[in-house]
Parts: sequence; structure tokens; C-alpha cells
Amino acid sequence: MDHEKLRKLLLEVKAGSLSIETAAQTLSTLPFAETGFARVDRHRELRCGFPEVIFCEGKQPAHIGAIAARILETSDRLLATRGDRAAFDAVRAVAPDATYVEAARAICVDRSRQEKIGLVGIVSAGTLDIPVAEEARVTSEIMGSRTKTFYDVGVAGLHRLLSYVEELRTARALVVVAGMEGALASVVGGIVSKPVIAVPTSSGYGASFKGVAPLLAMLNSCSPGVSVVNIDNGFGAACAASMINNINLK
Amino acid sequence: MDHEKLRKLLLEVKAGSLSIETAAQTLSTLPFAETGFARVDRHRELRCGFPEVIFCEGKQPAHIGAIAARILETSDRLLATRGDRAAFDAVRAVAPDATYVEAARAICVDRSRQEKIGLVGIVSAGTLDIPVAEEARVTSEIMGSRTKTFYDVGVAGLHRLLSYVEELRTARALVVVAGMEGALASVVGGIVSKPVIAVPTSSGYGASFKGVAPLLAMLNSCSPGVSVVNIDNGFGAACAASMINNINLK
Amino acid sequence: MDHEKLRKLLLEVKAGSLSIETAAQTLSTLPFAETGFARVDRHRELRCGFPEVIFCEGKQPAHIGAIAARILETSDRLLATRGDRAAFDAVRAVAPDATYVEAARAICVDRSRQEKIGLVGIVSAGTLDIPVAEEARVTSEIMGSRTKTFYDVGVAGLHRLLSYVEELRTARALVVVAGMEGALASVVGGIVSKPVIAVPTSSGYGASFKGVAPLLAMLNSCSPGVSVVNIDNGFGAACAASMINNINLK
Amino acid sequence: MDHEKLRKLLLEVKAGSLSIETAAQTLSTLPFAETGFARVDRHRELRCGFPEVIFCEGKQPAHIGAIAARILETSDRLLATRGDRAAFDAVRAVAPDATYVEAARAICVDRSRQEKIGLVGIVSAGTLDIPVAEEARVTSEIMGSRTKTFYDVGVAGLHRLLSYVEELRTARALVVVAGMEGALASVVGGIVSKPVIAVPTSSGYGASFKGVAPLLAMLNSCSPGVSVVNIDNGFGAACAASMINNINLK
Amino acid sequence: MDHEKLRKLLLEVKAGSLSIETAAQTLSTLPFAETGFARVDRHRELRCGFPEVIFCEGKQPAHIGAIAARILETSDRLLATRGDRAAFDAVRAVAPDATYVEAARAICVDRSRQEKIGLVGIVSAGTLDIPVAEEARVTSEIMGSRTKTFYDVGVAGLHRLLSYVEELRTARALVVVAGMEGALASVVGGIVSKPVIAVPTSSGYGASFKGVAPLLAMLNSCSPGVSVVNIDNGFGAACAASMINNINLK
Amino acid sequence: MDHEKLRKLLLEVKAGSLSIETAAQTLSTLPFAETGFARVDRHRELRCGFPEVIFCEGKQPAHIGAIAARILETSDRLLATRGDRAAFDAVRAVAPDATYVEAARAICVDRSRQEKIGLVGIVSAGTLDIPVAEEARVTSEIMGSRTKTFYDVGVAGLHRLLSYVEELRTARALVVVAGMEGALASVVGGIVSKPVIAVPTSSGYGASFKGVAPLLAMLNSCSPGVSVVNIDNGFGAACAASMINNINLK
Amino acid sequence: MDHEKLRKLLLEVKAGSLSIETAAQTLSTLPFAETGFARVDRHRELRCGFPEVIFCEGKQPAHIGAIAARILETSDRLLATRGDRAAFDAVRAVAPDATYVEAARAICVDRSRQEKIGLVGIVSAGTLDIPVAEEARVTSEIMGSRTKTFYDVGVAGLHRLLSYVEELRTARALVVVAGMEGALASVVGGIVSKPVIAVPTSSGYGASFKGVAPLLAMLNSCSPGVSVVNIDNGFGAACAASMINNINLK
Amino acid sequence: MDHEKLRKLLLEVKAGSLSIETAAQTLSTLPFAETGFARVDRHRELRCGFPEVIFCEGKQPAHIGAIAARILETSDRLLATRGDRAAFDAVRAVAPDATYVEAARAICVDRSRQEKIGLVGIVSAGTLDIPVAEEARVTSEIMGSRTKTFYDVGVAGLHRLLSYVEELRTARALVVVAGMEGALASVVGGIVSKPVIAVPTSSGYGASFKGVAPLLAMLNSCSPGVSVVNIDNGFGAACAASMINNINLK
Repeated sequence: MDHEKLRKLLLEVKAGSLSIETAAQTLSTLPFAETGFARVDRHRELRCGFPEVIFCEGKQPAHIGAIAARILETSDRLLATRGDRAAFDAVRAVAPDATYVEAARAICVDRSRQEKIGLVGIVSAGTLDIPVAEEARVTSEIMGSRTKTFYDVGVAGLHRLLSYVEELRTARALVVVAGMEGALASVVGGIVSKPVIAVPTSSGYGASFKGVAPLLAMLNSCSPGVSVVNIDNGFGAACAASMINNINLK
Repeated sequence: MDHEKLRKLLLEVKAGSLSIETAAQTLSTLPFAETGFARVDRHRELRCGFPEVIFCEGKQPAHIGAIAARILETSDRLLATRGDRAAFDAVRAVAPDATYVEAARAICVDRSRQEKIGLVGIVSAGTLDIPVAEEARVTSEIMGSRTKTFYDVGVAGLHRLLSYVEELRTARALVVVAGMEGALASVVGGIVSKPVIAVPTSSGYGASFKGVAPLLAMLNSCSPGVSVVNIDNGFGAACAASMINNINLK
Repeated sequence: MDHEKLRKLLLEVKAGSLSIETAAQTLSTLPFAETGFARVDRHRELRCGFPEVIFCEGKQPAHIGAIAARILETSDRLLATRGDRAAFDAVRAVAPDATYVEAARAICVDRSRQEKIGLVGIVSAGTLDIPVAEEARVTSEIMGSRTKTFYDVGVAGLHRLLSYVEELRTARALVVVAGMEGALASVVGGIVSKPVIAVPTSSGYGASFKGVAPLLAMLNSCSPGVSVVNIDNGFGAACAASMINNINLK
Repeated sequence: MDHEKLRKLLLEVKAGSLSIETAAQTLSTLPFAETGFARVDRHRELRCGFPEVIFCEGKQPAHIGAIAARILETSDRLLATRGDRAAFDAVRAVAPDATYVEAARAICVDRSRQEKIGLVGIVSAGTLDIPVAEEARVTSEIMGSRTKTFYDVGVAGLHRLLSYVEELRTARALVVVAGMEGALASVVGGIVSKPVIAVPTSSGYGASFKGVAPLLAMLNSCSPGVSVVNIDNGFGAACAASMINNINLK
Repeated sequence: MDHEKLRKLLLEVKAGSLSIETAAQTLSTLPFAETGFARVDRHRELRCGFPEVIFCEGKQPAHIGAIAARILETSDRLLATRGDRAAFDAVRAVAPDATYVEAARAICVDRSRQEKIGLVGIVSAGTLDIPVAEEARVTSEIMGSRTKTFYDVGVAGLHRLLSYVEELRTARALVVVAGMEGALASVVGGIVSKPVIAVPTSSGYGASFKGVAPLLAMLNSCSPGVSVVNIDNGFGAACAASMINNINLK
Repeated sequence: MDHEKLRKLLLEVKAGSLSIETAAQTLSTLPFAETGFARVDRHRELRCGFPEVIFCEGKQPAHIGAIAARILETSDRLLATRGDRAAFDAVRAVAPDATYVEAARAICVDRSRQEKIGLVGIVSAGTLDIPVAEEARVTSEIMGSRTKTFYDVGVAGLHRLLSYVEELRTARALVVVAGMEGALASVVGGIVSKPVIAVPTSSGYGASFKGVAPLLAMLNSCSPGVSVVNIDNGFGAACAASMINNINLK
Repeated sequence: MDHEKLRKLLLEVKAGSLSIETAAQTLSTLPFAETGFARVDRHRELRCGFPEVIFCEGKQPAHIGAIAARILETSDRLLATRGDRAAFDAVRAVAPDATYVEAARAICVDRSRQEKIGLVGIVSAGTLDIPVAEEARVTSEIMGSRTKTFYDVGVAGLHRLLSYVEELRTARALVVVAGMEGALASVVGGIVSKPVIAVPTSSGYGASFKGVAPLLAMLNSCSPGVSVVNIDNGFGAACAASMINNINLK
Repeated sequence: MDHEKLRKLLLEVKAGSLSIETAAQTLSTLPFAETGFARVDRHRELRCGFPEVIFCEGKQPAHIGAIAARILETSDRLLATRGDRAAFDAVRAVAPDATYVEAARAICVDRSRQEKIGLVGIVSAGTLDIPVAEEARVTSEIMGSRTKTFYDVGVAGLHRLLSYVEELRTARALVVVAGMEGALASVVGGIVSKPVIAVPTSSGYGASFKGVAPLLAMLNSCSPGVSVVNIDNGFGAACAASMINNINLK
């Protein structure tokens, strides 16, 4: 379309029906979206494999269903995070093949036949961190990554984690999910030489301050290669990990 | 230049020496600065009357002098905030007509012969708030506003402020500078029906938390028309106030 | 009334029925409201076009209805913010012409026939910020400003905002509403040379700390002309923006 | 009792039936409550006029009723704060003459025939601050103080407060209750030369941080004679104000 | 003067040389300081016994000296807090009878021959709290109160405090100064039935957060009659305590 | 099993069926759990007397029941904290001898016939702190410690605590539970020469910030021997206290 | 002495030279320090082996020297923490046998010939944590504990810590010192079944917030038996650890 | 060595001079460092290309020199961050080929002849952010990455950044450094589909809270693929970015 517009203008210039001065003026004032910048948008849609992820919290089921329907018009995959049963029902009404991963509160549609590639390892500390870890797993997979989970390997029982060292090293990127003191990210970062995306969770109480304690701990990690996303943001961590995982594979 | 580039391209299209397809391709990938967006920049330079303000803190005098020289090549006014004597000396070396307002730690060059317009009122609570208030005054003036100051009219002695009510009402915009409990912004906003830009200062101690107390107080102001800038940011407040003051005058 | 009282006293002085000493004593102890200060009040009622806005949160419907009735006795406009359906029903009982803007949780009565003037632009980042943006829109309008909304133009998809640059520049004042990282205020302030009132929202989660993250970001904006109001305070932003918009128009 | 015990021991020493060594040992290990310190306790019961105030929040009605019954065995007055209807019913079951001040969520029994003395002024900023102000009023009264309330005199409409200056000066101590920016305490402290006990309230939203904003503002008050109690602690403020009010009267 | 002005105006009214209309107009627009409100100011000057206290921090010695000279023109007492030797020298230059209490960093001039009245008890926890306690003592005395100090009686060695119980009870108001855990205020408030003004100090380290820990502890005091001032604000506490102490004595 | 594996490998080495090189390689890459580290695990299970404590908050009853059943397969004791009635019912379904301590929200099974040893003193300030104190008591007991409770001995009525000094000194370790200003830990630490584990509680309001005030106070305790656990963490405190209590006894 | 006083009084009672009434009166009003409570003090002096520790920060050398001299009159050991060279010189002037542990900034005098007993393990994460760890070591030793240090064993290189597991288990109590993410305390607590006193340090930068990050991490430790002291408080940790170490040994 | 030890043991088993039982026992109790875990260490040394980075802040030059010498014994590269001139002199004394990047405060030795690979883009907002950006650049390069810098492209002048869009897209990973409102990370993340490691800086003032404002903004970034490291941690960001950059190249 842009292209059509441009061609038409240039044809008029060539034909002499549009003065060069007027054409230059027009071109220098075209809205951004109508010149080069539009490419940004197309790139953006391709980035994680689909144009938009629905954050369900605070949205009404009907609204979620409508957005889902619109996305699926142009995409063969859909991800909706933090969705409850009602949100799922609304999506299923417009996409009968939608699936619901209850532990992750995630709604998925995957009509692509992409093969999962590479490996994103999802490591979590306690059972209360599993919902966030599952959100990271589901997100990684719908973005095309193979995943492997290592749950309940918190630092209070270090031997559990250490027994998986070899397996952890086969991942191309790691998501480490932990609440409380958030020490797991540093320990994993210290024994595995791969990029670690740390996700603090709000699973503790008292001086955890809804995830501030592990957030600060992770930001202060003395292990190189550890970076951090927002509290409970399993989705964001998986997005970064998948981007890393896909390097030179996709 | 942009314009030249565009004209040349269009001339080639017209002459048939450049295919329409190639021209369209070239136009859609031009860097942003070379198409319409450059206008943003030009607008930006005009906004407050000069292209860039030097924030001296953390910069070396030589560096400040060099930036000042570069700015004065294309502008007839210069403002450098939070500058000490050494910064001033560096600016004076490249601009002998530079002046230094010590109370405001501000360095100014004004070679324009603009007439000051409208009225920005600068109200401050205690003597320790004066440096920030002076920064607001100097900034307002170099941006073309007439100013009037009302200093040392804190709420502990309310009669001082109340004796200026009539004068305060003649301003088109007000900058209110206060530390400690920051109550002055609410009181001024309650008696004068003009936009109030509130500036919290770090002048207190203890539970002032270097300006957090008046910042929060001002954000919670129950007087309509009060908005807030960063702690000690006399410059920013004056910038907003001058923009308001200049409406329909400039 | 004040005036009558004063005239009566002065007549008595003139007539000699009141000694100068007693009159001086009386005048120096008159309650503030009975001397010059009363004008403050009258000014205050005129400022935003109506004497008092009802903040519904924490108030009972019956109480809200009663306040609304009292206000409408002397005013031809009414605004009640953060009101639910029950609050609306209570207002409608005393003002059948009341309207309810559900997205803004705002209850309005406008019996004035004022023409909207100028232009306040309302810009918002995400769909979750819309309630606050709508509160700003409704408030701006009842205060007499024309408005134009630019919703869902967050910085993660910059091209959306950039496509509106020309339109944004037609506003006399801008309200920018954003949660999460609050970057939108800086970006808008950087491309449009108009006063920007930034409103952080509590729409994020985790390290958003119910709006603290965008609040701090906005206070630290490096774009000149940006000032900030309380978290979710669409009303306050609109009040400031309308005051600015009305300069030299009203 | 202590005395009896001591006398008995000394008699035994005198009679030689208790060795000096054993008596010294016994005396040096007597529990604190059995020596002089017990007087502390009796003083404590007399301090505010009754031995214990029931803080109802988090306690079950049955438990509240039982405590009330026990207190009324030895006291002719009772105060229970932050009580709901169920708590009141539980108290009324054991004290049919109990009264409930709904606005203050306070339950009172006053079987004393004390005359109220002195004057504690209770000043509050907005309608949302009234519950805390009412708690202060009820507490002051049951502690024996006469009270006078000055409600809805916030600083955004200063003339309201100023019209009460003379009356405010008749109080012996003032309780000032305010949320939002908490400026009222400074303003009152600046115009009335009496001890001011400031109570921040949690009535705001956003950057009020549930009362932190007015708390900090009040702690930073530049008016002498202002001291502060916990957020929403109308009871504590009244307790301090009554202690001050009662000086040289009781 | 006010009075003269008023009388002159009234005389003109009486004489008919000023119309009633013009006089009424003049009276209703007189600046506040020139009508009744000026009394506030006079009251204010009398409140603590002198019109203004110099807070030296951040002020230059020459400036301090000048303010001191001005104050002593109309007052027979002077207090300058947080002053160093240079500040003292500046004051001594204009007031050779100035004294310097080094421990309190306080500069005093007392040319009144007032007798100290009542009793303000100053209690402090550790040796590092003594500067703040001394500021409270010096302030109380220059404001006319007799004082008695109880230093180094922190709760880690409770017997020290308990040995002073009888003496503490002879005070009419108590200032309790403590850093660290700030427990002293509660303990004193629990054993002495007098108004307690608690002053948190910044004397600790680490999780003291420069006085936040004792500030919060004191605000949460479960002992009735405890109110709190800003961190390290010995002056403010003494001001409140003296106001209380002077009730019915002055 | 480890042992079997190792023996088999060594037998193969001895028999020559496995080269020394290959065996060395294998041994250097054995997962941690299969070499010495496994001992850590066994130690860990023995530490407090049982392998795992169930934190019920956020877990579903069915899940809690299943974990309980699994634990009881290998342990003769079980502790589940922060459990409601539904959690208890789920545990009782798999362990009919389970008991529920409602005040502590703790579910216990104790099939050991261990004799309680030593003495852990549990001290608490107010009635609202009792649930946390009870969690500490129940935990201490199931970990094998004798306990004695000293409830409702807050510092506002110091004589109550002082009357128990002798008894407090008989404990080998003390758990001190307090909300509000958290002063109790310092006072106890000052009069009893035993290790004190302080537990701040979230029982206050306002500036208690859900337990931050007592947390900070306790961390700043000037009494030696006081250390602190998380807000409301009665379990953790009891765990530390029991470990101390058991030294040289178990 | 107390004892002498008591005996003398009782002898007088026995001899009849003091009436029983007078004696009872005297005994019930003796200052606390002179009756049973004085034992508290003596107990206190014995607790950690010496009556008072000098915290040098903020004290003048001369003052430190004087306190040291006074303490050494009645004690054969002295500890002064956070002392610089000047403080040491002042102590050495009154105690030529004083030693200075520069790494710990600790000044010690030990004239006792006590044998060190038990074992306190001091574990630290990074080289910047060593000063705090050394303060803990010096304190533990002067309080009579044998010590063993495990420095530079942070979690980023876990193998270093794991190589010391057996040795760590020989300690009776452990002090774990760590800044940054503070994960070391949890890891140590997870592999060694001994009481762990965790000390967060201010050694990091940025989001360490001068030790808040490790403080929160340690308070949220999921390893049982971990309790926490103030940031940088090596002394306090050693005091608690020594108290634990001395159980049943001293 | 490990290997030697193992071989010797196995040889003894094979020779029958060591019983299988004893050998198994020995192997299961070998310290961790001597079995498989040692590989972790070797892996760790290889991870970013060198075993240890010296953080100079708080370390003495002599100490830094000594560590540098030790590292260079086994490594052909060295990085020391946050070093001043004195630190550099100490390193140069042991490594004459050391270089000092003053803007980054980084000391480097690179004796490898590695070719730089891939591309890490370093983007920064203001001139005050350059030191952190330079630290990231130097670190990336010594870790083997090619780099390209995009400095001074803050969001207040968006056109600057947009003119580099094509170049930014050639990077394999991006480090985005920004203080103030930290909006740059979101904007870059929104237009470039590559992993972004965001570094908040402490370069602002007031409500920047030494970097907290941009830290929170970056954690709340609505652009996917953005993760965050500690304030001013250019080193950590570069470490993560290099790890990503090196995937499938190294």
C-alpha cells in the first residue's frame, strides 16, 4: 500500500503532472507510518512469532475473546497470559482449538506446525514458584523453543540442583524462577555458563515485600550472565530466553 | 540538504534515469532524520527558545566550555544550570558576556534583545529554598518570561503569603518552591486560580528524606491545578511555567 | 453581605454612634471570611467552572446524592469522580439529567450551554490506562475544553504515536497517561512543544509498585515542559490542563 | 500486701527464726512486682482514667465482650476502638448502657459522673478524615476533656479555617487530622500557639501511600509545637491531647 | 501602626472626607497583614518567647550573624541551632554575651531575667544521642522551662532507667531521645503518666536507615501519651514540651 | 545403591574389564547426588527431626494431604504451618491422629515418643501476637523442646515482664514475638543473658507497615545476643531456638 | 555491696535498733539498682564476658580512651569496635597491652588467661566482606570462643564452599557474612545443621542499597536455623554465636 | 592432579592392594573439589574468557596489583573495573602492557590474539551515562565481542535514535544504558528485535533516587526481550550480552 502510494506519486513526477517541489514537500511530511518506519511494525510482528500477547488481568472475558479473534485472523498462534477459566471460555468460543494450561493461567492456540528448536531450561525453587515457571515454559514453547523444566530445586537442598548440572548445561538459555531469598539465580549462574534470565516471584511473605527481596537479590547477583525481569514476569523472561535460544537456529 | 537530496532523486525519476521501483525502494528506507522526522528536531530547538541546556553537575569545566561554544554558534542564548565558579570561568572563556547568578548556580548568555512577556510568579517557603527558586527565576527569564519573586512566605507564618494575594493573582503561571512539609503549593493553589508548578526541595533533614516528604505532599495536593516536577528541579518547573506563560503571547 | 456589614459599621462611625476606637477594634478582629479573604472563596468557585468535585470513593451513595443536590442548587454543572453505579443512581435521583461515563467511573451533569474551547489532547499508553484517561477527558470537557484522545500509543510500538505527531501538535495542552515504565510522557514531551501533564497509573504489577515506577519515571523526565500529578489522578491532570487550555480563551 | 510480706519477713529476722543471710537472699530475689515497682502499675491504671482500651480489629466479638466485662468489674468507664456492629453487640450484652459512635467505630461505657474539663479542639481537613477525628473526639471526651470540632477546613479553602481562628485559640490542646498532603497541621500550628498533635490519615490514594505522605509532611512541619502520632491513630492523639488538657485541671 | 492606619481611615470617614463606599472598598482589600491577621504574627512571636529560631545548617556565618543582629533588635533572647564554631563567632561579633553549647551545637543569647518554671525531663538512650538531647535541653531552658536530664538510660540496661522512676514523675513533660530501636519512648511512656515527646535520632547504622527505625518504633508506641517529632529534631521536641510545661504556669 | 554402583565399577576395574582411564572419567563426572553429597541430604533430614515442613498458604487441601501422606511414610512426625480447617481435614484424612492448634494455624502429627528436653521460652507482647507465638510454641515442641510461654507482657506495662525475670532465666533460648514498636526483644535481651530470637509481627497498622517497624527495631536492638527472623515467622524462630536448645542435650 | 547494705539493715532489725515499719518502708522504696534488680546488671556484665563494648564511630579519641580506662578498672578484657588508628592510640595510652586488628577496625585488651572453647565458624562471601567477618572473629575470640574462618567462598563459585562442608560441620555455631545477593547464608544453612547467624554487609552498590538486598534475602532464607542481625553488625552476630557456642561449655 | 589421584586409587584397586570396600568408602567421601565438581570451576574459568574480574572499589592498589599478577600467571587477559589511576599504576607495575580506559575506569590486559566476533551494540541516553556505557564496551570487547556504540540518543530527541534503526538491527545483542526515566530501553526494545540488556544508571538527582527510577522503569518495560542488571553495572550487562553474542560463533 505504502508502496502503491509512493509509486503513484513517482509516476506523477515522471509524467510531469506533479512538480518536483510539491513532491519533495509531500514526501518530507508523510506521517511516519507511511514511510520507512512501517517496517518496524512488520519486524515487530515477526519478533516472537506473533503480533500481540493478551494480558488478561483487568480485562473482561468478552473483550479478551474479541481481541483473540482479531489476532487469529492474521496469526496462526495466540498467547493470553494471566487468564482465568472465564477468559479461556471466551477464547474457546472464537477458537475451539484453544488449550488452557491451568498451572500457568495461560491460554494458547498453536495452528503452526513449527518444530520446537534449541533448548530453554526452566528452573524453579519452590512449589509456589511453579505458576510463574509454567508461564515461562508455555511462553517459550509457543515461541518455538524446546523446553526442559527443573522444578523444586531450591538452595536449601542444594544436592537436588547439583544432580542436574550436566542437564542444565545442555540448555542454550536458562530461566530461573525463585521467591524468598532468590539465591537460586546466583547459584545456577555460578555453575552453568549460559545466559540466565532471573524471575523473582511474589511467593513469600513478610520481608519478601511481595517479591522485592528476591528482585534485589537477583539484581545483585555476583554470577556473571544473570539479568532480571519484573516480579512474576514468567512471560517476559521466556520472551528474552526464546530470543536468545533462537539465535542462529531460526 | 534533505530537500536537495529529495529533489535530485525526483529529478532523476522525472528524467527516467532512475526507475520508479528503485526510487520507491530508496524512499521507504531513508533514515528517519532524512525524511519528515527532521522537522521534530527543528521544532524542538525552538520550543523553549534555545536548543539545549547544559546540566553542569558531573561534567568537567573544559567540556562545559566546549558545549557552550558549540551552542552559541547557532543560538543567541545559553543556559547552564548547577554550575560552579569553575564552570562559569570555562563558559566566560568562550563567551565573555556570560553572567553568573551565584544564588542559582546558573550561567547565562543572552544576546537576544527579546522583551520579557507575561508574568511567572516564583514563590518560595524558606531561605534554604532560594537557590532552587532562583534557578526557576533565571530560567523563566532567559526563556522570555517576566518574573516576580515572593520569597520566605512559608505556611508557618501565613500572614506573609496572604499579604501578597492580589499580586500573586496577576501572574499567568506560578512556580512554588518548598521543602519540609511542602504545604505551600496547596495553600497557593487554594487561593490563586492559576496553574501551579510545584517544586519540592531537598532542604530539610531527617524524615524529609532529601525532598521525598514535600514531593509526596505536593503530589497529594488537594488544590486543583497543581502539578509537580522533580526534587530541586527549578529549571524544569520554569520550563513548564514559561511554556504556559507564553501561550497566546509568543 | 460583607459589604453591607462594613457599610453599616462605617455609617455608624460617620454618624458618631460608634467610637473610632471601638470600630478599629472590631475591624481588626473580624473573622477572616468577613473581610477581604472572602473573595478568595468566590474566585475559587469560579476557577474550574464549579465549586466542588465529589470524590465518591469511601462515601455512601446517599451522602453523594445529598452533596450533589446541594451543589446543583447553585451550579449548573456537576462532576463526581470514582463513582460506581450505586453512586450514579443516587445522583440521578436528584438530577435526572445526570449521565454516567462508565469507562471513567464519572458522573456528570451539564446544564450550561458553554461551547467547548481550545484543545486538550489526551494520550494513553495501554488499554488498562483508559479509565484514567477517560476521567481526564470527561473532566476536561465539563471544564469547558474541547478534547481529542490518542489511546493505545505506548512506546513499545512507537510508529503508532509517531503517526499522530501533527495532530498532537494542534493541542494547547496534553495529558499523557501511562503505567508500567511511564516512558510515554518523555517521548511525547520530546516531539511536541506543548505543556504535558503526566499521569502515572497503577495498572502494572510487581515492580510497578502500584504506579510508583511510572511516577518516578515521569518525575525524572528529560523532556522539558513535563509536570506530574498523583498516580491515577486523571481528574487533577485535566484540571491543570484545562486551566492552561483556557488561558486567553476564557 | 507487699508490706505484709515484708513485715512478716522482718519480724522473723528480728525473732531470729530467719537467718540474716537467708533474708538477704530472699529480698534480693523478690520479683519486681512485689517490691516498689508495683506502684508503677497502680499509677498506670489511673493515667488516662481507665486501665485498658480494647483495640477491636482482629479480635472476635466474644473475646471483646469478655474483656469488656472484666474491665467493667473494676472501672466505671470503657473504650473499645475500631469496633464494628458485632463488637458493639458483644459489649452491649455485658453492658446494656454501652453506646456506639458509628462514625468513630467506637464503643463507650461511661458510668462516671465526671464533668468534662478544659478544651481539646479537633480539627480535620476532609470528609474522609472524619472517622479518625471522631475517634479522637470520643476518646478525648471519655478521658474527661471537653471538645470542640472543626471539620472540613482543609487548606485548599483556607478561608474556612481562618474564620475559626479565635475559637481555635480557646483550646488548651489541638488534634489536627488530615490525609493527602497533611498541610493542615502546619497551618494550624502557625496560627494558634497551642500544642498540636497531628494525625495523618490513610484517606488518600496513589502517592499518599496509605498515609505516608501526610505522615512525612507532619513530621517535617515547620511550625513549632507540632508532634505526630501513627497514621489513623485518633485514639493516641486524643490520649496525648487529654493528658495535656488535664494539666493543672485534674 | 495598623491601629493608626485604621483610626486615620475611620477619622476620615467620620469627617466625611472619605466616602463610605471607598472606605468599605479599601477595608475589604487591605492586605491581610494590615488587618486582623497581624495579630497572628504578634501571637506567634510570643508563643515560644522569641520570634524566630535560626537553623544554621546550610547558611553562611555572615548571614547568620546578620539575622541574629536583626532578631536581637526586638528580642532579648536568641537561639541558633545546628551552628558550628564559625556560626558562633559570627553571632558573638554582634552579641558578645552569646554562649555556645558545643554538645548541642546551639548558640544562645538570654538577656531576659526570666525565672525557669515547671520541669521538662530530657531522657536519652545512648551517648551518641546526647547532642540531640542537649539541643532539647538548651531549647527548653531558653524557652523558660526548668530541665533535668537523664542520659544513658537505654533499655539494654533497664535498671538504670528504673532507678529514676520517682524523679521522672516530677516532670510536667518529657522529651525522650533515642536511636537504634527507639524502645526507650515506649518504656518511659509505660511507667510515667506524663506527655512524652519522642525524638528518634540518626545515631545508628545499617538498618537504622539514619533514624527511620526508631522513628517507626516511636510512631507505633503502644504507650499512651507518646507523640513524635522529626529525626534529630531536639529543638522541635523541646518546643512542644515547653509549650506543655508552660500551661497554667506562664 | 550408590555404593552398589561404585562397587560394581571397582569390581570391573579390578577384573580388568574396565580401563582405568574410563573409570576415572566416569567417576569424575558422576552426578553430585551419587557421590559424597548425598550425605548432606541425610543430615538435612535429621536436622530438626523431620525432613520437610508444609507451608500451607497458597496450596490446595488435596495437595497438602498428599504431601503429608508422603512425609509420614518415612517420618513419625509432621508439621504443617499456616493451615486452615480445610487443610487440617485433608491431613486428617491421611493421618487420623493429626491434631490442629487453631491459635497457631498449625497441623501436627507426633508418633514419636520423644521426651521434650531443655526449655525454650516464648515471650509475646500483645494478644494480636499470640498466633505467631503459638506457631513458635508448637514448632518448638514438635522439634523436641520443652516450652514455657509468657504472653501479653508488652513494654507498656513493664512490671508484667519484670515479674517473670527469674523464670525467663531458666530458658536455654528465648523466642520474643512483638509487633508495633518491637521493643520487647531489646528489653528481654537486656535482662536475660540467653540467645534471643526476635520475631516481628504484622499485627499493627499505619506506620507499622505490616511489620516493618518492629523488624527494623529488632535489627537495631542494642541488647547483645538478639537476632531476628522474617515478619510473622514463628516457625523459623522456633527452628533456630530449638537448634540452640538441643545443643549438648540431643 | 548491695548484700552488705541489706545485711546491715537486717542486723539492725534483729538488734532492734531499726523498727520493722521503717525497715519495710526503706526496702519497698529502695531504688531498683539497690535491690534485686542490681543482679540483672551483674548478670549483664558477665554475659559476654565484659560489661560494655565501645562503639567508636562518632566518639572522640579522648572520650574513647577515658571509657576504656574506666572499663579496665573492673574488667580484664576490653573490646572497642569501629575504631581507627587514633582511637587505638587513645586506648593504648591507657592500656599499653592493647592490640589493634586493622582489618576488623577492632581494639582489644585481653588480660584474662581464659582458654578458647567450642568453635564458631566465620564464613564470608567476598573480599569486601572481610572487615565485617574479622569483627565477628575478633569479637568471638575475646568472648572466649575458638574460631575458624572460611573466607571468599561466595555462591558464584560453589565448589569452594562445598570443599569445606566437613569442616563447617565441626562448628557449634556459624556466622555467615555476605553482601550483594546474600545467598551464602541460605546455602550454608542448607548444608550444615547448625545455628546460622547471618550478617548482611553494605559492600555492594546500586540496588544493594547499602546492604538492604542481602538483609532482605537473609530474612527470607528458606533454610531453617538462620537468623539475622543488622547490616555490617559483625559484633552482634559474634555475640549471639558466642552465647550459643558457650552453652554447656562455660 | 585429581585425575592422578583417581588413577592411583584405581590402579591400587586393580592391583588388589586396596580393597573394593575401602576404595568405595574413599570415593564417596572425597571433598567436592576433588571429584566431579572441580569441572565446574574449569568451566567457570572459560565462560567469559578469563577466570576473575577485579572490582577495584574498596580495594587498595597494592592488593589489586597482586591479584592482577596472580590472574595473569594463568590467563592472557585481565579486566579490572572501577579502577582509578592509582589502581592502574599498580596493575601496570606487574603488567607493563596494561591499558587504561579512563572514561570507563577500566584496566585491561589483552595478550590473546583473538579476533572480535559478532556485534554487541551499546546504546546510551545522555553524556552522564557514558562511563557506564564505556564499561560495557570495554568488557564486551575483552570478552571477544565486536562492539558499536550509539551514544547520546535519549528519548527527548527521538529522531537521533530513529536515524540509527538500521544499524541497531545489525547487532546480535544490545546493551542500553540510561538514567533519569530510563525510557530508552523500552523504545529500543520496541524497534529492534534483539535481546536488550538494560542498565539503569545513577546519573540523575532527586526522585531518581540514585538510579531507582530508571531501574523500576526498565523492569516494567512493555517491550519484550528486555532484561535488566544492577544500577551502573555496565560490566554485568556486557557479560550477559557477550554470552548471547558468542552463541554459535565461539
